[in-house]
Amino acid sequence: MLDATTLAETLTIEHVRAAYDRIKGHVRQTPVLRSDYLDELTGAQLFFKCENLQEAGAFKVRGACNAVFGLDDEKARLGVCTHSSGNHALSLSWAAGRRGIPCNVVMPRTAPQAKKDAVRRYGGTITECEPSTSSREAVFAEVQAATGGEFVHPYNDPRVICGQATCSYELLKQVEGLDAVVAPIGGGGMISGTCLTLSNLAPNVEIYAAEPEMADDAARSFKAGHIIADDAPETVADGLKVPLKENTWHFVRNFVTDVPTASEEEIVDAMKITWKHLRVVMEPSSAVPLAVILKNRDRFAGKRVGIVITGGNVDLDRLPWMAV
Amino acid sequence: MLDATTLAETLTIEHVRAAYDRIKGHVRQTPVLRSDYLDELTGAQLFFKCENLQEAGAFKVRGACNAVFGLDDEKARLGVCTHSSGNHALSLSWAAGRRGIPCNVVMPRTAPQAKKDAVRRYGGTITECEPSTSSREAVFAEVQAATGGEFVHPYNDPRVICGQATCSYELLKQVEGLDAVVAPIGGGGMISGTCLTLSNLAPNVEIYAAEPEMADDAARSFKAGHIIADDAPETVADGLKVPLKENTWHFVRNFVTDVPTASEEEIVDAMKITWKHLRVVMEPSSAVPLAVILKNRDRFAGKRVGIVITGGNVDLDRLPWMAV
Repeated sequence: MLDATTLAETLTIEHVRAAYDRIKGHVRQTPVLRSDYLDELTGAQLFFKCENLQEAGAFKVRGACNAVFGLDDEKARLGVCTHSSGNHALSLSWAAGRRGIPCNVVMPRTAPQAKKDAVRRYGGTITECEPSTSSREAVFAEVQAATGGEFVHPYNDPRVICGQATCSYELLKQVEGLDAVVAPIGGGGMISGTCLTLSNLAPNVEIYAAEPEMADDAARSFKAGHIIADDAPETVADGLKVPLKENTWHFVRNFVTDVPTASEEEIVDAMKITWKHLRVVMEPSSAVPLAVILKNRDRFAGKRVGIVITGGNVDLDRLPWMAV
Repeated sequence: MLDATTLAETLTIEHVRAAYDRIKGHVRQTPVLRSDYLDELTGAQLFFKCENLQEAGAFKVRGACNAVFGLDDEKARLGVCTHSSGNHALSLSWAAGRRGIPCNVVMPRTAPQAKKDAVRRYGGTITECEPSTSSREAVFAEVQAATGGEFVHPYNDPRVICGQATCSYELLKQVEGLDAVVAPIGGGGMISGTCLTLSNLAPNVEIYAAEPEMADDAARSFKAGHIIADDAPETVADGLKVPLKENTWHFVRNFVTDVPTASEEEIVDAMKITWKHLRVVMEPSSAVPLAVILKNRDRFAGKRVGIVITGGNVDLDRLPWMAV
């Protein structure tokens, strides 16, 4: 039985299939969108898996639903709690709301207003912290002690990893003959889920974890062979500031092909170009994959590449290409 | 055989089926997206047919492809020409580019930069005119005389109407049990196509033509029982400034349920709310249907309502909620 303490090494494709069956009545099978323009620009065939089109606007509903709906009734009664830069917070609130249980979240005070608003709209309760890993872990300890809710870590939790793994599980059914999948990496939940699914079902597909240069702890960890964590990196890709943990490091170390990075300017350019040509509203974090593909054209040209658009919760009054 | 002179009264569902077969290799079957949030807000079940996700970002590729690929080789050699506020211009350029024939377009100098850029990217040639119906018809006469290309009117052309009709033809396959369809109305091409398809295949489905108050010539025509045309209305919904013509008036008069209108502020609010909750990039024109549904809640509550999101070509540096 899967719980918060299950080790990453023991996760199998059966856990992914069980997660898929558990959550499929709650989350959407998101569409895969194409753009001839972006294909020409990159020389690749790009398949955009649009998780921004989930009701709550993020792939994180997959992991959140798998954790929330996997709880027995006794545990569920006390609710769930977490700390998150935003999308896990609002996704867990949304999932808890569907089950009718409480949800307490700790969020950095600098999180996008759109994400804070969504947590409240879905019935979650926010406690704010400073924008550093140390502050949020400290504030979270207090909140958890006060509420007694089940802690659902935003990415290091095996229930969450198995939920996120259903995204590439769907993608494999939607697109044949993929050569590579590129997803952004922050704490590594999406990438770990991608590794779990692909290493079992399509082991020849390359897996790229795309990261902002300004928060390149995963790239440095990948090179160094051990986890390197930064406390408070600053990047426009607000969803990608957190460090790897032991469960996600397991997948990154063993299954990721490479961890390419992109600059702030490259990320904002890729974001704007996707809004313009794919015509979906997505976050800066979701633009990092296209940014690294544009930057490493030779590596991806001629390939069929899946790109996970991870989220679409963005402050429409403060778009990064308009920043002064 | 369908040509530019075929009368609206003689169009049948077989013309729509022929158009569908002609264009289906060129245009996308666009997805139908949902939003629980917008369903709750309106009390209806909304099915958003996302024509903004066509490669060229507008439903107008349907009519343009039907016209361009229906030409015999002799006519095609001289190319095509048109006047348009933007999306027909860029869609005709795109379709002509796919067939490898020239395309000349007359556009108001005030058209969004994104739309002018797209025409040029697709290989079309632009001649600018003043933003009035009289100016564009006058400038167009000169351009057509100089090039000799086949005139493909942006909406009054029966080939165009049959192409646009394929949108609701697809929608009927994608969504069962629709009670109503709401689409924006400018010159009436999309609405005419919708009427042509639904009156034949689903005659009980209500058809609403949503229009900006500031360019409400179709609403006034509908009430008066004859075409009323304004020369140069001003609205944020830049795609909806043109007047009805005889072929589209035929469909509006005979098959449209009503022509509700929305204010500029209501349109911009509906646009922003769709970007935020449906997370697609769409034009102000495409927001008019949701604006009239929000304004006439009682008329739509409890119903299954198809909404055509007509286009997504918008200047990302000049979003209307940011206008000073």
